Amino acid sequence: MAKSARLSGFPERLPAERVIEKKVIDILEHTFALHGFSALNHRAVEPISQLAKDGEIDKEIFAVSRLHSEGAERSPLGLHFDLTVPLARYIADNANELSFPFKAARVQPVWRGERPQQGRYREFIQADIDVIADAELPGHFEVEIPLAVADAFARLAPLGVPGVKIVVNDRRLLEGFARGIGLENIQAVLRCLDKYDKIGPEEVAKLLATEAGATEEQQRLCLELAAIESYSPDFAEEVRALGVEHPLLDAGLDSLTTMLRAAHDRAPGVIVAQLKIARGLDYYTGAVYETQLIGYEELGSVASGGRYDSLATVGKKTYPGVGMSIGVSRLMAFILDPESGISATRGTPSAVVVAVTDEEGRAEADAVATALRARDIACEVSPSAAKFGKQIRYAERREIPFVWFTGGESGHEVKDIRSGEQTPADPQTWEPPEADLRPRVYKA
Amino acid sequence: MAKSARLSGFPERLPAERVIEKKVIDILEHTFALHGFSALNHRAVEPISQLAKDGEIDKEIFAVSRLHSEGAERSPLGLHFDLTVPLARYIADNANELSFPFKAARVQPVWRGERPQQGRYREFIQADIDVIADAELPGHFEVEIPLAVADAFARLAPLGVPGVKIVVNDRRLLEGFARGIGLENIQAVLRCLDKYDKIGPEEVAKLLATEAGATEEQQRLCLELAAIESYSPDFAEEVRALGVEHPLLDAGLDSLTTMLRAAHDRAPGVIVAQLKIARGLDYYTGAVYETQLIGYEELGSVASGGRYDSLATVGKKTYPGVGMSIGVSRLMAFILDPESGISATRGTPSAVVVAVTDEEGRAEADAVATALRARDIACEVSPSAAKFGKQIRYAERREIPFVWFTGGESGHEVKDIRSGEQTPADPQTWEPPEADLRPRVYKA
Repeated sequence: MAKSARLSGFPERLPAERVIEKKVIDILEHTFALHGFSALNHRAVEPISQLAKDGEIDKEIFAVSRLHSEGAERSPLGLHFDLTVPLARYIADNANELSFPFKAARVQPVWRGERPQQGRYREFIQADIDVIADAELPGHFEVEIPLAVADAFARLAPLGVPGVKIVVNDRRLLEGFARGIGLENIQAVLRCLDKYDKIGPEEVAKLLATEAGATEEQQRLCLELAAIESYSPDFAEEVRALGVEHPLLDAGLDSLTTMLRAAHDRAPGVIVAQLKIARGLDYYTGAVYETQLIGYEELGSVASGGRYDSLATVGKKTYPGVGMSIGVSRLMAFILDPESGISATRGTPSAVVVAVTDEEGRAEADAVATALRARDIACEVSPSAAKFGKQIRYAERREIPFVWFTGGESGHEVKDIRSGEQTPADPQTWEPPEADLRPRVYKA
Repeated sequence: MAKSARLSGFPERLPAERVIEKKVIDILEHTFALHGFSALNHRAVEPISQLAKDGEIDKEIFAVSRLHSEGAERSPLGLHFDLTVPLARYIADNANELSFPFKAARVQPVWRGERPQQGRYREFIQADIDVIADAELPGHFEVEIPLAVADAFARLAPLGVPGVKIVVNDRRLLEGFARGIGLENIQAVLRCLDKYDKIGPEEVAKLLATEAGATEEQQRLCLELAAIESYSPDFAEEVRALGVEHPLLDAGLDSLTTMLRAAHDRAPGVIVAQLKIARGLDYYTGAVYETQLIGYEELGSVASGGRYDSLATVGKKTYPGVGMSIGVSRLMAFILDPESGISATRGTPSAVVVAVTDEEGRAEADAVATALRARDIACEVSPSAAKFGKQIRYAERREIPFVWFTGGESGHEVKDIRSGEQTPADPQTWEPPEADLRPRVYKA
């Protein structure tokens, strides 16, 4: 029937790789639940009109249509390219059924028609958390979101995932600063600052002149602001020392200061203000976030987001929101690189293979398997009544640690095929060591 | 930004509904793991050439293409419409990396451009298990698959999901019987039998005459066979009594008899041989399965499948397989119907809302939440320092059972808002009752 058909940019995992990916997803979902986010699952498609907004992303949208449709579709569909657009539409669909502020978590694939490259895919998994409010979104949620993400990475650390640095900034701070020094084309200023890491301060200065009409003094002030980076809430003094005044600058400084103060208590050394972070053309209106894996900054951001003041609208009502998206597939690119040293003990859930002496004895082996499963021990019955050596090699090839020999007159025995030790065992009471019960993810 | 855009046939769940759906999925995944199936996750797309085989399904395929692609795509893509085609291609892609027989489980959405109707969707979740062998697939796997599915439904029963009847037949039995009575157009015979429940025996007899050229005697024998239904392996005697002989009939009878004997031991009263089951035009070559929810047979089959003798090919090698697919979304249509009586205790994971006395005290509330989360208790901090009555109503609206009042001088207290009882509590040691710790699914 089917033949091989590999597709670039659509990663699939081998069984042991999927054990790791599933573990990562489980930890993220569990952390989001501990922080009170309700798990949702969005449909894969949206009307193209919801997705395409004449932005950069439009050319990456995958359109979806019936292969043999008669004539044009009434409302053409596309695959979602992030989990923010579907959430916004979900809120608009279900506003009357939800309680606000509403905390939503989703871990799902998204699709983008990008050119596939290291850490970039056409189908990839994102893990998003968002808080959406009805009219007013209190500022403390801008603090809670990156702290929940910091907690998620802290819970991934035992697998061998490196620590993270969550860099934060505030759009109001940048806009207030730009206006305070007399620059009016805010979008141009943000675009220039966004290139800071790529082209360096001198080129940014030139761009600020040509794109935003900045004088030398304005360029100098922008670059001094962009160079500020701090784990301490005291960074505000450095900004104040630049002598710029604007109400939006005050609002942004207040919010960032509150965030760093809370971060200092709850996740010390994780959240850092970096005033050059602008997040390109996304329509953020307050906090913005990016996240680097420490020691692997070249991977790019593994968790990004920010605050939108108008995520969804229902009639005249608007719903502000703040959220972050963890790039699970990008994280997996790091984890599955052999250099990470992260592996799974096995790709099958089975802890035990129950050997079959002859096909007539299969029912006895099945009964042992049923007894083990009733006590939550994953197992399988040998596919054939081959010689025991062959049945043991079946387990070995799958890194299944135990082989069970059914009783007959001498009683049941179980063999740890790593040590070779074979001991009497009762299917009603025997248990494998905790470390062998399920596939485990570990760092060598 | 986004506005409401409901789409028929693309179900999305409200938070409490998703709690139930996730619980169902978790139970299925856990059962599959206990039976030794490795969890996989397929990409959503396949080359159209893998999907479209000039069959009935072709007109339901959703094609996928870049919205602004320049010219024709080199290998046009489509969304998978089941989890068998992607598995077959996955086996062909990764045959060298896998150990056979290979047991695979997947729980994922699939897409079909059908007209949406009760229990039928354009995007829906399937939960599949399959065993794929390298060259030879032992017959006992045809027994294990429906028994694993029976175990999965047994584990769903505590939620309130009714019992199931898994009806089985064997294509070899049908083909052998048809050949044994002198009918040669096997596809026509299968097509006629497949309509038995829809049009009744008399119409099937007429169809057998016109479509398969059956004489009155051949019609009579076919209908007698089709009427056989039995939970006991003794059904074979009823077939033998019809006096038909053919080697394929023997092979099919042997296999079904073995299945019913094993089912009698391991899942009594669940698996029934129904010799009218043919599974239409699917390319099965051995066992075929359908599953009815007892008392809700009108829903149609909630778990179907069978054996393929050539699931995948790599070079000259072919890989036979046997599997079943549980229709999770169809099951959810039953579960979410108010008549099922099945509900979730709440749609948010939080067991506790930590109240905030004033915004200056938010850090203290955050510290309590951190302490609770460290002991795996999901909670959230109140969104505002409103009057306590309002904060309690915030919890009530979400059916969160506990509100925590931070200490000050008098020490911490926690209130069960259902009983109104308020007691002193220590964030380092307090625990909610087990039944309140996580959202629970129950039948009223």
